[in-house]
Amino acid sequence: MNTYVTHLESAIDGTHLPADRVQTVHEGRPLWVRYDLDAIRKNVNPTDFQNRPPTLWRYRELLPTSDNTEIISLGEGMTPLLKARRLGEKLGLRDFWIKDESQLPTGSFKSRGFAMAVTMANHFGLTRFATPTAGNAGGALAAYGARAGAEVYVFMPSDTPLVNQVECTLAGAKTFLVVDGLISDCGRIVRELSDEMGWFDFSTLKEPYRLEGKKTMGLELAEQFGWELPDVILYPTGGGTGLIGMWKAFAELRELGWLKSDKMPRMVSGQSDGCAPIVRAYEKGERFADEWDEAATCATGLRVPKAVGDFMILDAIRESGGCAIAACESDIAGAMREAISTEGISICPESAACVLAAQELIARGDIAPDDRVVLFNTGASQKYAGFGDQEQISIHLNKPVDPKTFRTTYSHN
Amino acid sequence: MNTYVTHLESAIDGTHLPADRVQTVHEGRPLWVRYDLDAIRKNVNPTDFQNRPPTLWRYRELLPTSDNTEIISLGEGMTPLLKARRLGEKLGLRDFWIKDESQLPTGSFKSRGFAMAVTMANHFGLTRFATPTAGNAGGALAAYGARAGAEVYVFMPSDTPLVNQVECTLAGAKTFLVVDGLISDCGRIVRELSDEMGWFDFSTLKEPYRLEGKKTMGLELAEQFGWELPDVILYPTGGGTGLIGMWKAFAELRELGWLKSDKMPRMVSGQSDGCAPIVRAYEKGERFADEWDEAATCATGLRVPKAVGDFMILDAIRESGGCAIAACESDIAGAMREAISTEGISICPESAACVLAAQELIARGDIAPDDRVVLFNTGASQKYAGFGDQEQISIHLNKPVDPKTFRTTYSHN
Repeated sequence: MNTYVTHLESAIDGTHLPADRVQTVHEGRPLWVRYDLDAIRKNVNPTDFQNRPPTLWRYRELLPTSDNTEIISLGEGMTPLLKARRLGEKLGLRDFWIKDESQLPTGSFKSRGFAMAVTMANHFGLTRFATPTAGNAGGALAAYGARAGAEVYVFMPSDTPLVNQVECTLAGAKTFLVVDGLISDCGRIVRELSDEMGWFDFSTLKEPYRLEGKKTMGLELAEQFGWELPDVILYPTGGGTGLIGMWKAFAELRELGWLKSDKMPRMVSGQSDGCAPIVRAYEKGERFADEWDEAATCATGLRVPKAVGDFMILDAIRESGGCAIAACESDIAGAMREAISTEGISICPESAACVLAAQELIARGDIAPDDRVVLFNTGASQKYAGFGDQEQISIHLNKPVDPKTFRTTYSHN
Repeated sequence: MNTYVTHLESAIDGTHLPADRVQTVHEGRPLWVRYDLDAIRKNVNPTDFQNRPPTLWRYRELLPTSDNTEIISLGEGMTPLLKARRLGEKLGLRDFWIKDESQLPTGSFKSRGFAMAVTMANHFGLTRFATPTAGNAGGALAAYGARAGAEVYVFMPSDTPLVNQVECTLAGAKTFLVVDGLISDCGRIVRELSDEMGWFDFSTLKEPYRLEGKKTMGLELAEQFGWELPDVILYPTGGGTGLIGMWKAFAELRELGWLKSDKMPRMVSGQSDGCAPIVRAYEKGERFADEWDEAATCATGLRVPKAVGDFMILDAIRESGGCAIAACESDIAGAMREAISTEGISICPESAACVLAAQELIARGDIAPDDRVVLFNTGASQKYAGFGDQEQISIHLNKPVDPKTFRTTYSHN
C-alpha cells in the first residue's frame, strides 16, 4: 500500500505544501495532513479494522505512513473505553465513559503523537530530536527516540514531576531543567538553538504528524462505540493536539461516510483557572488566545500559557457546539483522588480538571443526565507522585500491632 | 456460558475442593483451578479468540468466571509483544522479544492477577480486602478494589518506592508502611489480623484466582506467536505466580491440542543475588526453598525471601528444562538503563535482572543465538523514580544559554 496522503495544507491560510519531504510550519502556524478520502473509501471498510492487531496502526489507510515506512512502535493504541458507572452516578450521568490513555507506552496519550512523528522523522532520515515539554511529551519522545536509535534532547520546567524527569534520563535522553521556566521558555530554547544544534523540533504542532497520531483517539472511540459518536467529549487542553486531532478524525470519518449518524460530539476543553488561555479566548469570542501570565497549576500538562494551535482548538470547540471551561485550581487534587478511589482508574490531574468542568456543565444544564459523555484520561496518576504522600501510616515491628490502629486511623464508611 | 471449572486441587497433595465457594489454601499450600478441557475443546477453537476484544477476558472459557459473574475490569490484557532487535544484537540473540506488561492498568503485570481475584472475591460477596506487597501488587489491589467498591488495606515495607505508596493512597486504600519490614512481615500482619479485621487475604497464592489471571500471559504469548511457543522464557521471580501460571497455561493448551508443536519453552527464573531463594534451592536440587536472610535488592519485586509456591516454581523450571539464575545486584541498575535506552521499552529493574541472567546463559551456551527468547517486562520503570535522578542539567533563564552546554555536558556518540 502506498500512502493516501495527497499534500499538507496550512491551517492558517490553506497553502498546499508537498508531503514527500520534511515540513514544519507555514507562517509560524501548523499544517494539516490531507488524504485522498475517495480512494480510501473505495479500498477500505471500517469492518476491516477490527480484524487487525489492536494498535493504532490498524487505521493505516488514514495515517501518513506507507508500506515502505519502517514503523517505530512500542505497541501503542486501542486503549480501553471503560464504563464509569459509579463516578457517573456521583456526577448525575447515566452514560459516562472514560477512555483510559494511561495504558499507553510511557503511561500517557503523548505516545500516540510521538509514535507517528518519530516514525515519519526516522523515515525522512532525521536522527537528532529535541522537544520542550510540560512533562509527558518528553518521556514519550525519549522512549520513541530510543526505539528509533536517535539522539534526544528534552527541555522541561525544573519543577516538572520527578517521574517525568526520570523517564527521560532512563531512556538516555539528554534532559535539561529550565529553572523558573515554563514550557514556553523551553520551546524558545529549542527553537533558538535549532540551527546550531541541528536538531529537529518536535514541539506541539511544529511538525504535522503528532496531530495524526493523536487523531487515532477519535478513530478508536468511533470504532469502540460502533461508528457512532458520543454526545460530549471532555478533553484536558494544554497544547490541544488531541482535541484538534479528534475533530479532524471525526470530519474524515463523516466525509468517508463511515459514521452511522452525522451527529458530531460537543467538544469540551477543560483547563485550570491557574492557566486558562483557551477558556479566556472562548469567553471573549476570540479566535486567537493571548499568552497567560504567571501560569500555575498542579496539572502540569495544562500549564501551557500559549498554544500555537489556539485557533484550531477554538474553531473545533465552536463548530462542535462545545465550550471551554476552567476548573478551580484548588479543587483539582481532591477531584483526582475522588475519581481514582471511585473507579480505580488512574485519573491524572489534567483529567480531574475535566471532571470538575463536567460538574459545572451539568449544573448549568449544558450536559443532560442521559447524554453519552466521554472523559479522556490522558495520563497515569502514578506519574504525579507528589499527590499522595504523607497519608501512609507506619507500623513498627518491635511494637505489637493493635487492630485498633486500623479502626482509629481510618474512619470507616 | 457456564464455567468450565470442575474443582480446585491442592498443589501439595492433590486433594479436591469445591470451587463454588470461597477457598484459600490447603495445608498452607496453594490450589490449582481445574477445568473440563474436553468440553472446552468441543466448544471453542483458538481462532475464536482473535475476533474478541483485546483483553484477557477473550480467553473466558479458560478462566474461572461464568456468564453471570460481574467482571471487574480496567481493560487489562493483550499487552504488546515487541521485537527487541537492538537489545538482541547486544546480547547476541537474533530472535529476541519483550512482552511489555508495563502497559497494563497500574503499570504492572499484577493487574492480571487482581482483575481475576477481585472479580471472584466480588462474586463471592467479599467486600474487605487486604494484601501484603513488595510494591506493585498493592497498587493493583487498590485499583481493582476501588473498581469493585470494596475496602482495601495494603501493607508494604516502609522503603517501598514512593510511586507504589502513592498509587495505593490515591485509590483510597488504607496504606501501611512496615518499618524495617519485608513483604514476609507484611504477610504475617495480614494473616494474624484476618479474624479480627474480617478482611480477605489476597497474598500471593493464598487464594486460587490470581494465578488464573497471571496464566493469561502464557495464553496471550501463545496466540501472539501463532500457537507456537518460544524456546526460552525469561521471567523475574518474586512470588513466582506468573511463571507457575504460564506453565499451567502451556500444559492446558497442550492438552487441548491447540499448540502447533508439543515443544515447551525452557522457563528461566531470574532473581538478584541480594535475594535468591529459588536459585539456591534450584542449585541444591531441592523442591522447597528456605527463607533468604537479609533480603536486599533494588528490584523491589524480587525482594521476596520466602515464596509459598516455591515447589510449584521449581517443579515448572525443572520440568521445562530451564533453570534459576541470580543477577549480580550491583549490575541491575546499569542493565536497566542500558535496556531502556537501547529499546525505548520501559524495563523495570526486575526484568533488567533477567537481561543479566540471559547474558550469563548465552555465555554458558545454555541459550543459543538462534533461540527464540522472550523476556517479560513485568512493570513500568516509571514506578521506580529513584533510579534516574541527578542526571538532569539545570539551565537558568537569566543567563544566556550557550550551546556548548549541550556539547560539554554530554559526550556525543
